[in-house]
Amino acid sequence: MTKFGKSEWSSRELALQASKEAIEGGGINPKRIQGAFVSNAFALTEHQGHLGPIIMSGLGIPDIPSTTVEAACSSGAAALREAYINVGAGIYDCMLVVGVEKVSHLDTITATTLFSYGSDQLFESACGASFPGLYAAIARAHMTKYGTTEEQMALVAVKNHDNGLRNPKAHLHKAITVEDVLKSPVVASPLKLYDSSPFSDGSAAAVVCSEEFAKQHNDNFIYVVGSGKAGASGALHQRDDLTSLSSSRLAAREAFRQANLELKDIDFAEVHDCFTIAEIVAMEDIGFAEKGKAVHMIEDGATRIDGYLPINPSGGLKAKGHPVGATGLAQVVEVFEQLTGRAGTRQVTEAEVALTHNVGATGGSCAVHIFRRS
Amino acid sequence: MTKFGKSEWSSRELALQASKEAIEGGGINPKRIQGAFVSNAFALTEHQGHLGPIIMSGLGIPDIPSTTVEAACSSGAAALREAYINVGAGIYDCMLVVGVEKVSHLDTITATTLFSYGSDQLFESACGASFPGLYAAIARAHMTKYGTTEEQMALVAVKNHDNGLRNPKAHLHKAITVEDVLKSPVVASPLKLYDSSPFSDGSAAAVVCSEEFAKQHNDNFIYVVGSGKAGASGALHQRDDLTSLSSSRLAAREAFRQANLELKDIDFAEVHDCFTIAEIVAMEDIGFAEKGKAVHMIEDGATRIDGYLPINPSGGLKAKGHPVGATGLAQVVEVFEQLTGRAGTRQVTEAEVALTHNVGATGGSCAVHIFRRS
Repeated sequence: MTKFGKSEWSSRELALQASKEAIEGGGINPKRIQGAFVSNAFALTEHQGHLGPIIMSGLGIPDIPSTTVEAACSSGAAALREAYINVGAGIYDCMLVVGVEKVSHLDTITATTLFSYGSDQLFESACGASFPGLYAAIARAHMTKYGTTEEQMALVAVKNHDNGLRNPKAHLHKAITVEDVLKSPVVASPLKLYDSSPFSDGSAAAVVCSEEFAKQHNDNFIYVVGSGKAGASGALHQRDDLTSLSSSRLAAREAFRQANLELKDIDFAEVHDCFTIAEIVAMEDIGFAEKGKAVHMIEDGATRIDGYLPINPSGGLKAKGHPVGATGLAQVVEVFEQLTGRAGTRQVTEAEVALTHNVGATGGSCAVHIFRRS
Repeated sequence: MTKFGKSEWSSRELALQASKEAIEGGGINPKRIQGAFVSNAFALTEHQGHLGPIIMSGLGIPDIPSTTVEAACSSGAAALREAYINVGAGIYDCMLVVGVEKVSHLDTITATTLFSYGSDQLFESACGASFPGLYAAIARAHMTKYGTTEEQMALVAVKNHDNGLRNPKAHLHKAITVEDVLKSPVVASPLKLYDSSPFSDGSAAAVVCSEEFAKQHNDNFIYVVGSGKAGASGALHQRDDLTSLSSSRLAAREAFRQANLELKDIDFAEVHDCFTIAEIVAMEDIGFAEKGKAVHMIEDGATRIDGYLPINPSGGLKAKGHPVGATGLAQVVEVFEQLTGRAGTRQVTEAEVALTHNVGATGGSCAVHIFRRS
């Protein structure tokens, strides 16, 4: 993956950088790649659709088929899933998945407005409800129902910023305290600036291939052992409960069933913490904690890198950054780095099985993947 | 599919109309649909990304996973292909694919500019080369190399308008003559207005399911027997030859190989005639005619509905219309109507095997599918 943050590069250039790193890192001749999925949401703002042939041409493999996939902020996981299915079905032996986003050419209001198009235009964005407001509604509901506090949410930000300090590719490199979070400007009450992930540019890529292909090329590979994907109503008003994302629950259940694994088998997870409350809700929806109890794990330090269930050792969306189309694949990059023992000062000890959880919008889409080290 | 043309409806509403028609026409309970792909390129102009959950919510099946796919004008075929692979791999028994586009809220200059983002921004659209200009370059090269004339290109438009008159859902219902085409305003010489497909709104959908599922629900289904997809450089200047789209050749070859069929087995085809020259080039790239010889088949009437190889009985993009994300699936709708004997006055007699050919941009992407009647 590229360093996340504000970049001078275009989506085309960012995607080429990440793709080349993935291909070369895997010791693979680019000509062996037979197909590709690109995940992206907003390249039209750079006047470029149809990213696949553009990127494949830059890689010197214009002939291979490529398709862009979009599922709002879960686009990256959607790309991984389709590549996994294509390779699993034997259509291709080796595919490239690359996610990319570039938003720093837009001002904050324009970017916030553009992101809001991932929600339900008719019922939400056209009414002025952008994602900070929608996640604030989720946070307020969680506080009301379970007594969750702003201090507890702030702990998520403090942990993820701490992890981000150890990740050279993270967007934000800044230690913060609970007090810093509480004193930061209110974005949509109760969510404050430091409860929120930043607008980032960046790209992340992975090579998805058959076991046989992997073994021919590299000792450093990981297995995808489960993939789950689900949807939910686009708009929050159609949900029974604001404190849970049903698509997260369904996707996690499917991934665990397919992997034939249990919650206790997961050594660490990268979850979709677009806002601090989202990490709390994700832990509960996946099943790592009962409803309303995730905050106690966080308070006890269980989710720190040295805890018994590290969550977002990469820094998460909160500190690593959130370039929409790249986010789900950056989670995969972190899992790869961790399960192959290259995560440096943020290495989770003895990690064998890891989970990624990537949410689109307020859970209109969610994909969960489980990985095992080779 | 909805009627193509200028519509008062949004993409959301158009997609729901086509989806409901496909699901109800198949005699399927919507709850049996397990996953979906949406093909779309420009819904951000309606302030709506993340179309899947929006459409699935409208169908009353919000929980099912859905992903938007984009490959410029070949998005529809990309959606079909991924559903075919998912169902073929046994991931799902029954999926919905729905393509949609809405552009009539944009003026012609804005729409032309937006469409140009499907080409290579760096080398083409930013330099002022929009699709009429790029296809004009292809036409001029074909005229220079093979002696193709403007009159011969016009015959494609005359035929497709004639076919469109028999298609109640076509955008353009207007008989035209070769003289009308030649006298129509020049868009990008040698291409004139009547050499060009229109900007259309519309949606087309299909249910893609296992053979077993189909047989449980309906006698009226068709088989997908081959699927090929390939890419090529985004920009024309990177091509060896302007008179042929290499992605068309590669995709067609893969589809025929997979179907274990030969050219002579095809009873009719829906090809990507975004401009008249594109139908000529498509016929040659698929292999229906040698290079430079397709025009003779057209002159002889071989590609009319009553000819020995009808091309675009639906009216094609030229007359049926070209709502980008829907186009590839509208080709599938036509094949379904024809192979199940419901094409009315445009029925191709004794059709058993048909081919669809869907191009993205100037061939940066192409997907070819072959179908057989049940």
